[in-house]
Amino acid sequence: MSERITKDEIDNTLESMGEKAKLAAYVLAVMSASDKNRALNVMADSVENECAFIMSENLKDLKVGEKKGLSAAMLDRLKLDKERIKAMADGLRDVASLEDPVGKILTSSIRPNGLKIDKVTAPIGVIGIVYESRPNVTVDAAGLCMKAGNCVLLRGGSEAIHSNLALAHCLSRAALSSGLPEGVIQLIPWSDRRAVSKMLTMDRYIDLIIPRGGEGLIRAVVEQSTIPVIKHYKGICHIYVDSECDQKRAIEIIENSKCQRPGVCNAIETLLINHDIAAEFAPKVAARLIECGVELRGNSEFRKFVPDAKPAIEEDWYEEYLDLILAVKVVSGVDEAIAHINRYGSGHSEAILTTLPKNAEKFMNEVDSAVVYMNASTRFTDGGEFGMGAEIGISTDKLHARGPMGLPELTTYKYLIYGEGQIR
Amino acid sequence: MSERITKDEIDNTLESMGEKAKLAAYVLAVMSASDKNRALNVMADSVENECAFIMSENLKDLKVGEKKGLSAAMLDRLKLDKERIKAMADGLRDVASLEDPVGKILTSSIRPNGLKIDKVTAPIGVIGIVYESRPNVTVDAAGLCMKAGNCVLLRGGSEAIHSNLALAHCLSRAALSSGLPEGVIQLIPWSDRRAVSKMLTMDRYIDLIIPRGGEGLIRAVVEQSTIPVIKHYKGICHIYVDSECDQKRAIEIIENSKCQRPGVCNAIETLLINHDIAAEFAPKVAARLIECGVELRGNSEFRKFVPDAKPAIEEDWYEEYLDLILAVKVVSGVDEAIAHINRYGSGHSEAILTTLPKNAEKFMNEVDSAVVYMNASTRFTDGGEFGMGAEIGISTDKLHARGPMGLPELTTYKYLIYGEGQIR
Repeated sequence: MSERITKDEIDNTLESMGEKAKLAAYVLAVMSASDKNRALNVMADSVENECAFIMSENLKDLKVGEKKGLSAAMLDRLKLDKERIKAMADGLRDVASLEDPVGKILTSSIRPNGLKIDKVTAPIGVIGIVYESRPNVTVDAAGLCMKAGNCVLLRGGSEAIHSNLALAHCLSRAALSSGLPEGVIQLIPWSDRRAVSKMLTMDRYIDLIIPRGGEGLIRAVVEQSTIPVIKHYKGICHIYVDSECDQKRAIEIIENSKCQRPGVCNAIETLLINHDIAAEFAPKVAARLIECGVELRGNSEFRKFVPDAKPAIEEDWYEEYLDLILAVKVVSGVDEAIAHINRYGSGHSEAILTTLPKNAEKFMNEVDSAVVYMNASTRFTDGGEFGMGAEIGISTDKLHARGPMGLPELTTYKYLIYGEGQIR
Repeated sequence: MSERITKDEIDNTLESMGEKAKLAAYVLAVMSASDKNRALNVMADSVENECAFIMSENLKDLKVGEKKGLSAAMLDRLKLDKERIKAMADGLRDVASLEDPVGKILTSSIRPNGLKIDKVTAPIGVIGIVYESRPNVTVDAAGLCMKAGNCVLLRGGSEAIHSNLALAHCLSRAALSSGLPEGVIQLIPWSDRRAVSKMLTMDRYIDLIIPRGGEGLIRAVVEQSTIPVIKHYKGICHIYVDSECDQKRAIEIIENSKCQRPGVCNAIETLLINHDIAAEFAPKVAARLIECGVELRGNSEFRKFVPDAKPAIEEDWYEEYLDLILAVKVVSGVDEAIAHINRYGSGHSEAILTTLPKNAEKFMNEVDSAVVYMNASTRFTDGGEFGMGAEIGISTDKLHARGPMGLPELTTYKYLIYGEGQIR
């Protein structure tokens, strides 16, 4: 399909989508919470009511995927059934029930000259989402962005194009029918790469890009974009086991952080063990992890105590396995642990397991990551677990949003200043 | 000088500067407010004590500038005398006296599972500043970034290279002598463009780029950078005079916004007048502005009442004159004013002059700019006027910082989570 489209056609279509989104954003920005919530519920009903249509479009993607030889895991991620469609609709209803993040007064002050300065939350405007595979992102992202008063331009992966188009069609029609302006939810109808390139330079219309997918996708987005991007490349999370700690609890936390769901970004990839306890602790934790099916790759000091572990090479410290593999290093103490994490980590989530408050404080202050734990599993880095209600993603950037991003992170602020004729 | 340097030499030098800055940032991040303040005062003294050296280096730049045929205005901006050097030193002392923005608990909550989640401000890390002409940026930016716990990589313009090197030398030596780690303040020693290009892709070391200068410089930075950028391209500020307002005050505010300092970004470039009062108000405001030496460029309706005004063309609405020129349009009402501003404006600062609260509310909610005023001059958009103490710049972006950026905007946050063995 995309072979026949010229670059001009793509550019013109995207320009007009961008302009439409920008104009819609001004209208959406001042809509009441109840109007937005009503629309979210209508959108949820629409997705559920159109279940048969969505599934038939999804089937097209699945057939193409099979022909292309996608793995069973990939096909499963792509697949939409009644249950998953219901879950997407319920997700929209959950978003409707969350607090409106727009119009909150963050600070208010009166200057000596009498000017009253209010700093108030406001929608960002137009948000571009670039994502891969799972069609549920279409629904989740559209719902969250809209709730925060933002229009979305969605660009999903080619493997889910029919599913995404069907979902976006339901959502935008429902939004329109509930009184939202045209252009609040738009999906780029081609998986053509030229369309992404064009999208990423439309800084005139788009205020923020959020890429969701593998590191390759995210790097390509960052390199091309003239629009601010919020992202996370990788989740290389660490646990450091200190010289004094509750070893039984430590083993539970390590097992949970590694094994409960090894394929996600907040699972640990590297374990650091204080050498003072290594002789005792290393064999114990190794036994438990091996029991759970984890492959261990250790530095030479760790392998003294766990000779069966494979040797870790330099690359292992940089690796996001997303699998039942764990790199393990015996370190001299909290300082070496911090230095290791700041050098090899991805700034996502790290934990210290200790009963020494001084070491905990040092670790938490000096580790340069979005989330730093004392005596808890790294698996808690999640919008839901933080009480945000829903998350659009996790940021390992330090600008605007760091860590889990919920509705407040989908807003900006503006200053409203009330005067009585003041001049400078 | 720069012709002889190879790309490899530039790249290697910048890599090692970046790495040094990153390592220094971890140390600086946990230094106490009093240690940082002491260093700022030592830096101030050093700049003052080295006044003769700085002036002799500045003289080199002035001589080169003269040969190159820089304008008198440019040479004046470049020039450093005793008074200006004293002012820079006093600026550092002022920054020392401001509140430390690091380590503030923004929110704190206890989750149902007992996890205590604190959201705490933290330094951003390494900040790159790309700027033109005025050497005082070297000192101001270094001081503000350092106070917020950040290292800086400075890259000034070629016309001020000797002055900047002299200043950076004083600052970094003083920082080092007061116990700060090496690498807190570094200036790229070449004005070579290849050095900027390299700098803008060092996302491994640099966390944020702040460009300060003309629109051309800023666009080039945004296009090349893989590091988040906070910027403002232009300040096309507007005043809208509503159908009912205190006309005498309105004229004072308009004169102040246009004429008090026409060359700055918070001066107005366009005046919008409600057509209900245009017949009475347009000639009055025109007379005052012409008296102040302002050239008026009006739409046809404005020129009915002020025939001497030049006709405005489409380009005028996009223009940042930075001069005693003002575009003027008679509009049908608050809706047209808002639409005009959202279309042609730069998202900086706008004001409505009105006695109708409903129109003020509509204007303030619907205008998509960093700062929106009711009945006050746009000239108040300034860190000092906002009570920030000092500003590093003004952002027309919507991410992370919008409007004047002070010390708090030079920080990020991190989540510190305290557990007792919680697993998921």
